[in-house]
Amino acid sequence: MSSDSKMKAVHYEGPFKVSVREVELPKVQHPDDAIIKVTTAAICGSDLHMYQGRTAAEAGLVFGHENMGIVIETGEGVTLLEKGDRIVLPFNVADGRCRNCEEGRTAFCTGVNPGFAGGAYGYVAMGPYQGGQAQYLRVPYADFNALKLPSGKEHEADFILLADIFPTGWHGLELAGFRPGESVAVFGAGPVGLMAAYSGILRGASSVYVVDTVPERLAQAKKIGCIPVDFKKSDPVEQIIELNGGMVDRAVDAVGYQAVDKTGSTEKPSIVLEQCIMVTRPTGGLGIPGLYVPADPGAPDEQSRKGQILLSFGKLFEKGLSVGTGQCNVKSYNRYLRDMIIAGKAKPSFVVSHEIDIDEASGAYEKFDQRIDGYTKVLIHPNGPL
Amino acid sequence: MSSDSKMKAVHYEGPFKVSVREVELPKVQHPDDAIIKVTTAAICGSDLHMYQGRTAAEAGLVFGHENMGIVIETGEGVTLLEKGDRIVLPFNVADGRCRNCEEGRTAFCTGVNPGFAGGAYGYVAMGPYQGGQAQYLRVPYADFNALKLPSGKEHEADFILLADIFPTGWHGLELAGFRPGESVAVFGAGPVGLMAAYSGILRGASSVYVVDTVPERLAQAKKIGCIPVDFKKSDPVEQIIELNGGMVDRAVDAVGYQAVDKTGSTEKPSIVLEQCIMVTRPTGGLGIPGLYVPADPGAPDEQSRKGQILLSFGKLFEKGLSVGTGQCNVKSYNRYLRDMIIAGKAKPSFVVSHEIDIDEASGAYEKFDQRIDGYTKVLIHPNGPL
Amino acid sequence: MSSDSKMKAVHYEGPFKVSVREVELPKVQHPDDAIIKVTTAAICGSDLHMYQGRTAAEAGLVFGHENMGIVIETGEGVTLLEKGDRIVLPFNVADGRCRNCEEGRTAFCTGVNPGFAGGAYGYVAMGPYQGGQAQYLRVPYADFNALKLPSGKEHEADFILLADIFPTGWHGLELAGFRPGESVAVFGAGPVGLMAAYSGILRGASSVYVVDTVPERLAQAKKIGCIPVDFKKSDPVEQIIELNGGMVDRAVDAVGYQAVDKTGSTEKPSIVLEQCIMVTRPTGGLGIPGLYVPADPGAPDEQSRKGQILLSFGKLFEKGLSVGTGQCNVKSYNRYLRDMIIAGKAKPSFVVSHEIDIDEASGAYEKFDQRIDGYTKVLIHPNGPL
Amino acid sequence: MSSDSKMKAVHYEGPFKVSVREVELPKVQHPDDAIIKVTTAAICGSDLHMYQGRTAAEAGLVFGHENMGIVIETGEGVTLLEKGDRIVLPFNVADGRCRNCEEGRTAFCTGVNPGFAGGAYGYVAMGPYQGGQAQYLRVPYADFNALKLPSGKEHEADFILLADIFPTGWHGLELAGFRPGESVAVFGAGPVGLMAAYSGILRGASSVYVVDTVPERLAQAKKIGCIPVDFKKSDPVEQIIELNGGMVDRAVDAVGYQAVDKTGSTEKPSIVLEQCIMVTRPTGGLGIPGLYVPADPGAPDEQSRKGQILLSFGKLFEKGLSVGTGQCNVKSYNRYLRDMIIAGKAKPSFVVSHEIDIDEASGAYEKFDQRIDGYTKVLIHPNGPL
Repeated sequence: MSSDSKMKAVHYEGPFKVSVREVELPKVQHPDDAIIKVTTAAICGSDLHMYQGRTAAEAGLVFGHENMGIVIETGEGVTLLEKGDRIVLPFNVADGRCRNCEEGRTAFCTGVNPGFAGGAYGYVAMGPYQGGQAQYLRVPYADFNALKLPSGKEHEADFILLADIFPTGWHGLELAGFRPGESVAVFGAGPVGLMAAYSGILRGASSVYVVDTVPERLAQAKKIGCIPVDFKKSDPVEQIIELNGGMVDRAVDAVGYQAVDKTGSTEKPSIVLEQCIMVTRPTGGLGIPGLYVPADPGAPDEQSRKGQILLSFGKLFEKGLSVGTGQCNVKSYNRYLRDMIIAGKAKPSFVVSHEIDIDEASGAYEKFDQRIDGYTKVLIHPNGPL
Repeated sequence: MSSDSKMKAVHYEGPFKVSVREVELPKVQHPDDAIIKVTTAAICGSDLHMYQGRTAAEAGLVFGHENMGIVIETGEGVTLLEKGDRIVLPFNVADGRCRNCEEGRTAFCTGVNPGFAGGAYGYVAMGPYQGGQAQYLRVPYADFNALKLPSGKEHEADFILLADIFPTGWHGLELAGFRPGESVAVFGAGPVGLMAAYSGILRGASSVYVVDTVPERLAQAKKIGCIPVDFKKSDPVEQIIELNGGMVDRAVDAVGYQAVDKTGSTEKPSIVLEQCIMVTRPTGGLGIPGLYVPADPGAPDEQSRKGQILLSFGKLFEKGLSVGTGQCNVKSYNRYLRDMIIAGKAKPSFVVSHEIDIDEASGAYEKFDQRIDGYTKVLIHPNGPL
Repeated sequence: MSSDSKMKAVHYEGPFKVSVREVELPKVQHPDDAIIKVTTAAICGSDLHMYQGRTAAEAGLVFGHENMGIVIETGEGVTLLEKGDRIVLPFNVADGRCRNCEEGRTAFCTGVNPGFAGGAYGYVAMGPYQGGQAQYLRVPYADFNALKLPSGKEHEADFILLADIFPTGWHGLELAGFRPGESVAVFGAGPVGLMAAYSGILRGASSVYVVDTVPERLAQAKKIGCIPVDFKKSDPVEQIIELNGGMVDRAVDAVGYQAVDKTGSTEKPSIVLEQCIMVTRPTGGLGIPGLYVPADPGAPDEQSRKGQILLSFGKLFEKGLSVGTGQCNVKSYNRYLRDMIIAGKAKPSFVVSHEIDIDEASGAYEKFDQRIDGYTKVLIHPNGPL
Repeated sequence: MSSDSKMKAVHYEGPFKVSVREVELPKVQHPDDAIIKVTTAAICGSDLHMYQGRTAAEAGLVFGHENMGIVIETGEGVTLLEKGDRIVLPFNVADGRCRNCEEGRTAFCTGVNPGFAGGAYGYVAMGPYQGGQAQYLRVPYADFNALKLPSGKEHEADFILLADIFPTGWHGLELAGFRPGESVAVFGAGPVGLMAAYSGILRGASSVYVVDTVPERLAQAKKIGCIPVDFKKSDPVEQIIELNGGMVDRAVDAVGYQAVDKTGSTEKPSIVLEQCIMVTRPTGGLGIPGLYVPADPGAPDEQSRKGQILLSFGKLFEKGLSVGTGQCNVKSYNRYLRDMIIAGKAKPSFVVSHEIDIDEASGAYEKFDQRIDGYTKVLIHPNGPL
């Protein structure tokens, strides 16, 4: 700890600038809170939305919604966790007692962010929860939110991915209605897309096509058993139909509203959804874990600024497709994915590109934002290397 | 029968014109065919798309995809049906042996309409199957397609609705992910909308809101236990949220691409879908049995002509809604709905407005198209009254 | 309240004897606790197992696991409930933070009853939770366990049934895999059986057969739209197959291990399960909400004493039946059933036979145990009439 | 072909005796029939029930329900198959037009075996269908029953397993309610058990425990990534709970009614079911693909002879377990498993021990029955090596 009552934290300064500053240590505010010493906090692609100044995030926000660590203090209402427990936290903050939480829809908790369904750590408009890119973190409703891990340091780089991207990729398949033996097209081979593709492999997909254009990403997709498709070469829908001998059963959009056309740089928010509709066979399903927002002031056109997308809905209807959307209810999956990691059946850490000290966070954000030096998935160890 | 080898049939002549003419009697063409003497064939709202000349239907087409009757002949491959059996047919023609049929998705049969997933009787682009608004009808794959009924004449006006609108309304709830006890908003109180609403009542919905503006339709909705909402009075979304004390769990679009704005006459294809998105609570679901088409040359704007709809997809994603679409797999439900009718638990014939002889068909189409004299659901008895 | 720190409570004295005594008022013991003033507590058939001395229940236990009332105090961790809220409690005590609770299996909570999966109020071996047949009740994990009701006194006799029997009956259908339009046989027309049958009616069963032998019960079944079957008249399986024109789709065992043969008095623990197997068509399902216990020292034979039942498993397998068992996860259904009650769609209170003051509890237990004077479902108002 | 109108076939002679004799060539009997030239037919463990004289099978029956080959003739009703197509057939004969077939429950077809739900090739009491351990085979309802394969000879030993044991193993997991990430215990490491275990691996089980006592089988289980458990060493339930750190989520009984106790030779029909109940955690599920029969004249005790099993039903109920039973609906899975084989994701042929000419069938049955020389899964090529 940097001083008696202070700790280091990644502090948002304004567009394209974060710094590591000292902030107050978190305290137990509710009997069901716990405090953890953060061993690992990952930087997420969605942190860049704030970093780029494309949101209403204000200076001073501590980033970090992918967090894990060791319990150092528990409120008097905590019954399951104990000091010393190693835990990983879903990015969702959830109260475990509202209707949506009861029904397993923890990404839509109505008790943690007044007037909205859903909360998260360190994210604009997702409630008053400081992020975990810091030495310590307050965990609300800790018994409910924490997933216990085997003590020690093993699998740290795998377990941290249980906070968000591994479950989110998995969720993409769920949203699409995936069943083992089916064929899947995953659009986007960033960390979430790769996790969706990897989930398909783990769950017995017959074929997983992964669409992107970055050679390193496509190489990773191939390495885990998927079939890479470069959308710059030619229409990815045609490529997949050709390779698959027909349309696929399921499509996953792991790109979201900042999709780009084949130039790779011009935003065209509807392009991936349209491709999903076209590449999926009648009676199939689309899973949309990629983020779409109700308002996007920085969007290229008037409609997109209002969060509206022009869709070939007539074609979608004619095919009788289903569409599943929304953020991941991490708790629905993380326990099972954890057990697959422990048993050696899953090893998602192949997407991790860098592990850094918190003092290196500022530069890491810069490089990650510019996608240089291979920065794709960065783990911060705020209390030093394990 | 009108002559030895001829029969009367409702014959499409061109925009806004049908006549009753004599055509050849249908014959067994495949060993699994059967021929029925039609006791009842209903006119469907979707027949009006052809009637209005808004499709590529050609003169000479015999209309009628809602059909029932008595088996008078069976091919040598037929094993379950026998002469004299009273049966009702799904509007879908399906082969029962393709992948989609095997999996219960009979609306997307790939074996009956080359190059397309799905077939129907008497409908443009749905395969070479004559319609049943005629004295006799050929039934392909008859064992698979027929649903047997108790012999006699009882429940005729209920059973004929098993061909399309009762299952289609029921399907709307399925597509929305409905579970008993939930609240539902049904948009459109035409026959399909009323059947969706009635299905909600039968299946234990806590509250069913029905949105329309025609007083008779709203009155029918109220009569079966629903809460009517007139979209001309004020924003139906606001009305429902007010009445329900919050958003509903599920929304059903029983209107489709010819939706109109609050003037009641200007087409605005996206309006109902948008209202469905807005009226449904986070984690809820939308069911879209209402027809959307991939191409609509007569549409009011360029996008609609290509079957494209501008949707608040960002809001849909933020709420984590699911969307189910597509034509009804009638066979998934008709057996169960039949049993509810027989047991006296369901009586969907309350939507039937007229029963006519086939010679009155031309005038009935005209009045139904103009929505005058209360023409809402017309049953033709092509071989005379029962 | 009877004195400053005491309250009246139904106190178990020993076999066939309860008394109403003064006991200490309950106190908040954990920050997530609440205290309610009990407006209604129902006597359940399963209370009789203890009353009859057939369990290990010890003198001093306060009975009552079907409870509702008004919140008068909340611990400092409670975030959703407020003083004055009218709530009904599932009979299950659940912590809302263990794996089973997370997954909606609140009847199998592992956090409230060490070494066992599941807890309840006022029941032997179900944890240290006093029952609610008392003026006040401590509610653990109150935000999670409570279901809020509209304030006032309306529907009190319906809402109290949300604590156990209405959801438990509903659960029977879920366990059986019921879908609307199917036929169901419910064995047992006690309160739970009637609620299972009523659930079938509410959810669109085509036919619901109810098997019992008590005329009043069979009359009630008929009144709500079911088909009564008297097992003393002849083999109920044959009767149902005859009436239904074949086997039913689903069967529900709402009797449990104290089943009797056609004499109506000799225990034959396997008889209802066997009838369920025989009456259900191949591919159908059995739902077993009726209680079976792993040890029953008072059972008629050695096997039953060890909780073993001889089943026609070969027949069950040949038919490919599914079997669902276990106590009801009340929270999975109570919200939806509440909304059906509020909307006037469900009115389960038809099973209530008596409403009494707490001082009458002793006599009520006696009569209920002897099934005299029509005692079938008794509501206690421990703080006097509403 | 051995003569103009004759072919070789494996002919049941009586207990412990089969011979290869010439029988009439099969003919098209119904327009939807096809005739195939059999390339491979496998011997199944369930053939041994007949071989051992433990059933009512009569001399003259041609065995073989696991069949594949090339279409050489089609009836005039066949629309999808063509001469030259390479196909594999589910062991179930199904008509594709009865209620159960419509609903995907093809193992319970009511149209192929009068008075019974379910039919099969070459099996006593499963209808009048000759088996495929012969040079040619008649395939009823051929379009519906056949699964097309890529032409050629590739994957023959994998594809033949799609007729029965690969889907049946997979079905075991379905019946148990398996979801990826869960832990599973599979009892029995014969071909079906190994396929169930392999299915768990393919579908993302975290841990798969396989219980048997034959060293070669346990070694195979280990080789595919499972954890072997020898039930002769000590109580397998205790072993699994110890290894797994608690009970498993799902259990699969791939043994059936001829289960033996730890001596390995004394039949104890309830032992595996009891172990399944004990080893599965509360809220978990049991899948029972292993055969149980309604009557077993050769059974060790009176109850077993009537197909009755004594179960710890009280414990099963207390845990809230679900139980799924019944023969496999092969068509529900075979398409997907085929695609996994083609894509190189699954290679089930590791269980195949021998490939023989039809003239070697008699000796193969003898050795397989005695479990000597490693005979576990034998493929017959009735028209010679591929």
